[in-house]
Amino acid sequence: MEINTNLLAIFGFLALGFSFVTATDPAPLGDFCVAPSGSKFAVIENGKLCKDPKLVTADDFFYSGLNMATNTKNRVGSNLSVVTVEEIKGLNSLGISIGRADYAPNGVAPPSYHPRATEVLTLVKGTIYIGFITSNPDHRLFAKVLHPGDVFIVPFGLIHFIWNIGKIPAVAIVAYNSQNPGSIAVPDIIFGSKPPIHPQVLVKSFQLDKKTVAYLQGQEWN
Amino acid sequence: MEINTNLLAIFGFLALGFSFVTATDPAPLGDFCVAPSGSKFAVIENGKLCKDPKLVTADDFFYSGLNMATNTKNRVGSNLSVVTVEEIKGLNSLGISIGRADYAPNGVAPPSYHPRATEVLTLVKGTIYIGFITSNPDHRLFAKVLHPGDVFIVPFGLIHFIWNIGKIPAVAIVAYNSQNPGSIAVPDIIFGSKPPIHPQVLVKSFQLDKKTVAYLQGQEWN
Amino acid sequence: MEINTNLLAIFGFLALGFSFVTATDPAPLGDFCVAPSGSKFAVIENGKLCKDPKLVTADDFFYSGLNMATNTKNRVGSNLSVVTVEEIKGLNSLGISIGRADYAPNGVAPPSYHPRATEVLTLVKGTIYIGFITSNPDHRLFAKVLHPGDVFIVPFGLIHFIWNIGKIPAVAIVAYNSQNPGSIAVPDIIFGSKPPIHPQVLVKSFQLDKKTVAYLQGQEWN
Amino acid sequence: MEINTNLLAIFGFLALGFSFVTATDPAPLGDFCVAPSGSKFAVIENGKLCKDPKLVTADDFFYSGLNMATNTKNRVGSNLSVVTVEEIKGLNSLGISIGRADYAPNGVAPPSYHPRATEVLTLVKGTIYIGFITSNPDHRLFAKVLHPGDVFIVPFGLIHFIWNIGKIPAVAIVAYNSQNPGSIAVPDIIFGSKPPIHPQVLVKSFQLDKKTVAYLQGQEWN
Amino acid sequence: MEINTNLLAIFGFLALGFSFVTATDPAPLGDFCVAPSGSKFAVIENGKLCKDPKLVTADDFFYSGLNMATNTKNRVGSNLSVVTVEEIKGLNSLGISIGRADYAPNGVAPPSYHPRATEVLTLVKGTIYIGFITSNPDHRLFAKVLHPGDVFIVPFGLIHFIWNIGKIPAVAIVAYNSQNPGSIAVPDIIFGSKPPIHPQVLVKSFQLDKKTVAYLQGQEWN
Amino acid sequence: MEINTNLLAIFGFLALGFSFVTATDPAPLGDFCVAPSGSKFAVIENGKLCKDPKLVTADDFFYSGLNMATNTKNRVGSNLSVVTVEEIKGLNSLGISIGRADYAPNGVAPPSYHPRATEVLTLVKGTIYIGFITSNPDHRLFAKVLHPGDVFIVPFGLIHFIWNIGKIPAVAIVAYNSQNPGSIAVPDIIFGSKPPIHPQVLVKSFQLDKKTVAYLQGQEWN
Repeated sequence: MEINTNLLAIFGFLALGFSFVTATDPAPLGDFCVAPSGSKFAVIENGKLCKDPKLVTADDFFYSGLNMATNTKNRVGSNLSVVTVEEIKGLNSLGISIGRADYAPNGVAPPSYHPRATEVLTLVKGTIYIGFITSNPDHRLFAKVLHPGDVFIVPFGLIHFIWNIGKIPAVAIVAYNSQNPGSIAVPDIIFGSKPPIHPQVLVKSFQLDKKTVAYLQGQEWN
Repeated sequence: MEINTNLLAIFGFLALGFSFVTATDPAPLGDFCVAPSGSKFAVIENGKLCKDPKLVTADDFFYSGLNMATNTKNRVGSNLSVVTVEEIKGLNSLGISIGRADYAPNGVAPPSYHPRATEVLTLVKGTIYIGFITSNPDHRLFAKVLHPGDVFIVPFGLIHFIWNIGKIPAVAIVAYNSQNPGSIAVPDIIFGSKPPIHPQVLVKSFQLDKKTVAYLQGQEWN
Repeated sequence: MEINTNLLAIFGFLALGFSFVTATDPAPLGDFCVAPSGSKFAVIENGKLCKDPKLVTADDFFYSGLNMATNTKNRVGSNLSVVTVEEIKGLNSLGISIGRADYAPNGVAPPSYHPRATEVLTLVKGTIYIGFITSNPDHRLFAKVLHPGDVFIVPFGLIHFIWNIGKIPAVAIVAYNSQNPGSIAVPDIIFGSKPPIHPQVLVKSFQLDKKTVAYLQGQEWN
Repeated sequence: MEINTNLLAIFGFLALGFSFVTATDPAPLGDFCVAPSGSKFAVIENGKLCKDPKLVTADDFFYSGLNMATNTKNRVGSNLSVVTVEEIKGLNSLGISIGRADYAPNGVAPPSYHPRATEVLTLVKGTIYIGFITSNPDHRLFAKVLHPGDVFIVPFGLIHFIWNIGKIPAVAIVAYNSQNPGSIAVPDIIFGSKPPIHPQVLVKSFQLDKKTVAYLQGQEWN
Repeated sequence: MEINTNLLAIFGFLALGFSFVTATDPAPLGDFCVAPSGSKFAVIENGKLCKDPKLVTADDFFYSGLNMATNTKNRVGSNLSVVTVEEIKGLNSLGISIGRADYAPNGVAPPSYHPRATEVLTLVKGTIYIGFITSNPDHRLFAKVLHPGDVFIVPFGLIHFIWNIGKIPAVAIVAYNSQNPGSIAVPDIIFGSKPPIHPQVLVKSFQLDKKTVAYLQGQEWN
Repeated sequence: MEINTNLLAIFGFLALGFSFVTATDPAPLGDFCVAPSGSKFAVIENGKLCKDPKLVTADDFFYSGLNMATNTKNRVGSNLSVVTVEEIKGLNSLGISIGRADYAPNGVAPPSYHPRATEVLTLVKGTIYIGFITSNPDHRLFAKVLHPGDVFIVPFGLIHFIWNIGKIPAVAIVAYNSQNPGSIAVPDIIFGSKPPIHPQVLVKSFQLDKKTVAYLQGQEWN
């Protein structure tokens, strides 16, 4: 009987204890390809031209200073400092980067996303409230209070925010699976673009009146 | 002399007329892998389980209806209908999808992004103003008025908007290099998340007062 | 009992309603990397050297003319015009391209394939018969008649053909998930290669006599 | 002066001796993921379900018999036997496969392509003439006579053919960078598809008369 | 004159200030795909089956405890604790993971490599000496003393070691661009494999006598 | 009843006979991109700069000599000669390479790994014992005796060794799914690095006394 056969098949199937390991991550094409520094052409430095391997030293894979607090005396009371291929030339073609985030008490990281990476945030000090929102049509908020030693994932490309809800400065180490994850702080991009987005688009999109949009586009953004 | 040798080398180098063709796009693992339909488990349909190839028919690679105007009688006066792997099961694992966008006169597509794809928009009818904004710290706006037959690219993951500046409905065909590009309409995601983002985060991020944030979070969003 | 436990497990497993979302599509390394134009070295233009971002304008992401019928007064009565990274420099590294196909009444697109992309065809006007064939050993034909608004997928790398079976010119928009999908029209490649394939290879491969092969190799091909 | 500065810059640039190492190859997600065998569901075996690692043995990474000549007593006098993930379950997710090709004297491998892989052919015995043809619009033939120990590359997805021009059987080892490269023998796919392509399409595409097309579609193909 | 033209061309070329942004990192296929937990089938949990999105909570993206020192009372005086997709189900398909390493004074991480990831190490406490060695034929050592706040990169797949040269325990945060980077501690793998490698292979490979190899294979390894 | 419904669903599910075909392999961006030769800048030749397609010939895809025994008169009695993009410029960007391995009677290939590729080994002559070891914490040995015509897979990045246990020289063809797989012979890398690893690290890591480590670091390595 058809069904019985299937039933046996599925038992055999499960009894084997299958696992799923499927997709692929990228592997580079050589041991390393250090981006050349010291050139006048800054744009070249960000790219794929490799420094002569004979001239490469350990310093090309090194960066110093993630133990230093960064300046959070700004409008939002936070600072994100990402060490990308710009700062560690040896990251070139390796698909990973690291950073440090500081949050003053009550400081926030405004709703932002990284267009080219997943983020892993590890809280080192303080207490933060962190959340991300999924895409349309669900736009569900997943949020959590973090304490030192806590790790939280922000999936690839999703909008997330952070709020220091403690009484002391908070510090986090953030890791990205891109050598150049990019960062898009939504309020700054939308109300501070150069040149500005036509106000009528924002009025209709945000359900705001013209005056509020004009006020927002007149503010200083990062 | 060192420099002269280099000079000759570079001339030879250029005389050869080099081209650069480097990165890779993905290739699938089989001719096709149609997502199974007819299951009660909708979530399975969106994935990588393949329908028995013997049962696959031409209809698994087919979709009908992109010639039909979609309903733009909504708050923003626009509608985006994307045909992803959900609608064409045969798109599974193939890394591409297509859609139709309708814009009523004066309608807008609010600032949005696709977290997993580049978009190619081809205007079929009407006149639209389209723009995208680059990431921090530059947030430059690149914008253009489009007429029928015009094509515009929105690079991977960047925020873009559209405004129908003509007197008739506008229609565009949009293509994405992902079978499931995702869509994040920024105002809806940020002011309409479920549950809501804590208002204090939005007050600080958007430079708005509590009352305006409360108003915004009280509106209806998509 | 082992089997019972498995049975429970599988029910729990299904009750959870699993979905499958597995493989990855590529993300670029920066907001964009516009291929440089204006150079004498055409081969460089097709590649990965990026234009100085400061000099990039909206026109680098723009193309005009897909609304214009192309010339189908040729042997097969069809024309495919693909807008690749050659035409829109901003497509560089973004893994997608678009095109327009015109088919005169009774015109055909000969059996062809794109070695580096899946194709999504959207019929805009007319009536066509389209099909693709799977690889060895099955070589099954999947074919369909399309009307305006219909979408059909040609999986990555498979041979497909199109025939305008209507009485008016047919027009389609085609999208590819490669910035340079390539196009291989089988008859032209095989009987019109430069230099020609040795006729003996074709005689044996196609079960044709020498005379017919000589005739074919003597014809004009694209 | 602008140009002089650039000139110095380029000398410094070249003096550094840059190398280019850029794109990425895929890396799997685990040590291995052996496709399960012994299941009634053959289609599952070809996929990504992994055998329980505890039950994996060295035989899952093993295949025997590439030293045995295969049967070339067929219409074209050749035989290609590819060892894919179907034959070596341990190849699953590893992106590589191997095969053996036999060519009787005067035998040919008809114009064919692998839609998902580059091929590296190493001739072990005999003398063959091998060539591949590039895509439109150039369709250039690159061909070569090979002797034992010679290696020839067929780039990803391009049409190639082989002709045994020696007096003894020829043998080659072929490697592909896909666990399932696929094989499309052009004459068989086009004239032997099931169901057949409408003859009118072939008449127009191949510049053949109806009778010849009918004859071809009536032949036996692989 | 050919060369002059080229010279002009190159000047124009450089004056444009090209940048190089070429390869691609992977993007997932959906917002997330949480690996299902609570199943008896541990092997499934490590894979690509997704938990029903409706049942996903913030805890699926959360891990606690990286602030806790791990046990370094072992033979080498070090401990590496990696938080992979096994520990944070939400990491599934996202291509990144994080960990904590503890080194007792004088403790070492023996020569090891991660077969599927680049590593970024950030020293949080103490003083370590870290190095990696390139592949054949150069096998160059790149090494560095690190202090708190220092970051060091170990390129994809290369052998590296760490030595706590300070007087206090050292602590590092390590990030990998794989959800399952794997770890291969060379002495343990080679002298502690199960079953053992035939001693004759090791005698010849390591230039050791049989007695030393027997002694080594008799030791306890991790 | 919930469970019954699920039961029916799973039967329907299985009756369909699903297959799994999921991850992706890379496809290049053009028909080919031959690395330029004849330049003084050897490091450029290893990269992504393409030779002018018009100057490309069949020889760019050709290599001769894999039929010639290589010299195994060395300490380990073996030799691996890999034909990478350095030797066949046309392999550039195509993600595959090939090689020949010779093993004198009793010769060994010391424990080694390829950081950027899976290996497929096909034994052409002789009798070898081959094995690979999985990563921590299992480090299981999978080993096999091979005879001519046997194929064995070494999964991506794992340590493997070979021992000629026959009385005649053994010969193998090896294929890699990378144009530059890299090779790391563990004893040579660890005891022969330049400059040497600090002996204290090796003493602790390998459970050897200082004298033995000093002896090993004093030997000649490849």
